[in-house]
Amino acid sequence: MELVVNKKRLNERMMAMAKLGARPDGGVCRMAVSDEDKLGRDQIVAWMKELGMKTFIDEVGNLIGIRDGKTELAPIMIGSHIDTVPTGGRYDGTLGVVAGLEVVESLNDAGIETERPIMLVAFTNEEGARYRVDMLGSRAFCGFLTPGEAYNITGIDGTKFGEELKRIGYVGSYPCGVVKPHAYIELHIEQGPVLSREQLKVGIVNAITGISWHELTIRGEANHAGTTPIYMRKDAGLSAAKIICDLRVAANTIGPDHRATCGMISFSPNAINVIPSEAVMSIDLRDWDEAKLHKSDEMLKASIERISKEDNTMIESKPLAWVKPELCEHELMDAIEDSVNSFKYSYTKMVSGAVHDALIMAKYCPTAMIFVPSKDGISHNPTEYTSPDECAVGANVLLRTIHRLADGK
Amino acid sequence: MELVVNKKRLNERMMAMAKLGARPDGGVCRMAVSDEDKLGRDQIVAWMKELGMKTFIDEVGNLIGIRDGKTELAPIMIGSHIDTVPTGGRYDGTLGVVAGLEVVESLNDAGIETERPIMLVAFTNEEGARYRVDMLGSRAFCGFLTPGEAYNITGIDGTKFGEELKRIGYVGSYPCGVVKPHAYIELHIEQGPVLSREQLKVGIVNAITGISWHELTIRGEANHAGTTPIYMRKDAGLSAAKIICDLRVAANTIGPDHRATCGMISFSPNAINVIPSEAVMSIDLRDWDEAKLHKSDEMLKASIERISKEDNTMIESKPLAWVKPELCEHELMDAIEDSVNSFKYSYTKMVSGAVHDALIMAKYCPTAMIFVPSKDGISHNPTEYTSPDECAVGANVLLRTIHRLADGK
Repeated sequence: MELVVNKKRLNERMMAMAKLGARPDGGVCRMAVSDEDKLGRDQIVAWMKELGMKTFIDEVGNLIGIRDGKTELAPIMIGSHIDTVPTGGRYDGTLGVVAGLEVVESLNDAGIETERPIMLVAFTNEEGARYRVDMLGSRAFCGFLTPGEAYNITGIDGTKFGEELKRIGYVGSYPCGVVKPHAYIELHIEQGPVLSREQLKVGIVNAITGISWHELTIRGEANHAGTTPIYMRKDAGLSAAKIICDLRVAANTIGPDHRATCGMISFSPNAINVIPSEAVMSIDLRDWDEAKLHKSDEMLKASIERISKEDNTMIESKPLAWVKPELCEHELMDAIEDSVNSFKYSYTKMVSGAVHDALIMAKYCPTAMIFVPSKDGISHNPTEYTSPDECAVGANVLLRTIHRLADGK
Repeated sequence: MELVVNKKRLNERMMAMAKLGARPDGGVCRMAVSDEDKLGRDQIVAWMKELGMKTFIDEVGNLIGIRDGKTELAPIMIGSHIDTVPTGGRYDGTLGVVAGLEVVESLNDAGIETERPIMLVAFTNEEGARYRVDMLGSRAFCGFLTPGEAYNITGIDGTKFGEELKRIGYVGSYPCGVVKPHAYIELHIEQGPVLSREQLKVGIVNAITGISWHELTIRGEANHAGTTPIYMRKDAGLSAAKIICDLRVAANTIGPDHRATCGMISFSPNAINVIPSEAVMSIDLRDWDEAKLHKSDEMLKASIERISKEDNTMIESKPLAWVKPELCEHELMDAIEDSVNSFKYSYTKMVSGAVHDALIMAKYCPTAMIFVPSKDGISHNPTEYTSPDECAVGANVLLRTIHRLADGK
């Protein structure tokens, strides 16, 4: 008998999760450590127990289910998260956790005992939407953030993470920073348009993007748009515009995998007949290649220097975040590719342009990711959609990959 | 005896006006047809009467004072306005009216009777800050707007212009669109940096700018800044930035008197990690040369067409205003230049990049303008400043110009 998941059961669990924190528009609002998150956690733990897994809660509320192996070798870990952004969809994160349950149940159904234990984890506060340290649970799991530091984080609603975690009853005793998995595999929706537009079933992630975020403040001089000759102007808005144009040129220079975006801007005083005295703008640079990410930072710096001279403006660049990119492990990618090929699914190797718990895990143990399509690339949105068939494809690939890895084949 | 103004008296009247609607920060808030405006109007009319002028209020509340001439030839008209923007200064508009009183009193002191009558006007609602038809009073004076149309205009506070004008007691019976002056001369602060930076005392205005205002709405596609490859993007913010850069190139191409400004912008959804789906921006184009203003509109249109193709965005351009520029009358400019030279004041001929009542009057009768410096080019601001000496320079030039014109010399 071929080892495959039960698509109907997988979909039923996905739809059951979608009801916990359901929004009237079909989306999900299950902010980390909220009452809705507690409902989701209770459900996941209940399912883990139904499948015969040993369940644990760790010090930052990560949900852990263990299916014993024949040996006590380091476990193969499956993980993702069940928290959402406020205007979230049904698939981001949740698919990876629910598919992990399906892997376990499919192995149970087939009567397969693996050499290594299988550890399924639902990480706390991946989104960073409520507590602004994203991937909080995986950071703590790996020991990159202590539980004490985590407890002290204040949320956008003024609450303390530690107090809210206690309130919903999810402060556990399973220690953080101790268990080192043999491998970590995360199934996730792409959250981008590539698989959807190219009509491919699977993405084998070869690297997870690094991020460089900046906030630029450009100061010029507010003057009358009619009475101020061009040569006397210090136009902060013009400098901002030139930087945006330069970003695109830099992205095209650096290469096809590079991303450079200005998503936010504001002018002051923002009046039709006044030259902007100030422009504030965000810069989001991403690359899977650390050297290219540094190069992008350098090109931005050179643009700023040139443009501030050209326009007689002052440009201050404040770094908001710098995250090192991580490569996925080749052996794990090969195992995923074999699994994909055993089903004859169409696939491509691709970079994850979004960050995930896998980015943190890759800094701790061998890691790889499997992507399935997001319809039209839409995510973090109630209309986020991945069909039951597409979810099952991802779960199938995850199942055979985990089976192979857990048996050391 | 040389014909000159009384600097002390001029300054005392300026400071008396500054108290009517005074702001705590030293500026003035005397919005058109407000209680503060009524105080200002009462004061101007009282001074006109003190100087022996016949006073009239016209159908839209323009204040008219007439100093009889020896003949009943068409009058020489002096004018400006006393309304301010909410965060206004002490000099914008008010100087032209108060200097007109000083011209009359100086002629009285010197016992000079002129051939033509002198007509001093303080126009209603020049700023357009409360009722959004700027230069409302001069438009109606010339018959370009009927009193009935004016009465119906709704202000930013929801009031009707006609009702407020009645409330403050300034609906008069002097008819609009009937008297055609022989010439109109307006003294005004520059509201720009040229005289201040170049340390010149007088600007002889040779043209008043035309204006072309647009609002552009650029529509692209909101997508994840990390997962969307550059080639799949429809970045509305990038298109906006390219248009701003093109505006500057166009201004430099069209010539040194051209002005092109983007003062307002907004992105949607305006998030650091989302490609903008929409950008809304304002465009302010100005030139004294109508052909060049049309050329600028055409260059903008060409930019929009090229950029929307390049970026795969939709760009909609909504015209907000189009005002034809006006040239000043050469004979009047010569009269002003002779007057300036009689004092040996330094001067330059220059374009008015801001619009004034004189722009409307130029469409109706021979018109010219005299500028005095605005410190650092600052205007529409409580820190707006023109020194008593600089004010007196402007009033002196106005005095000798009016004397010459009213005597037909």
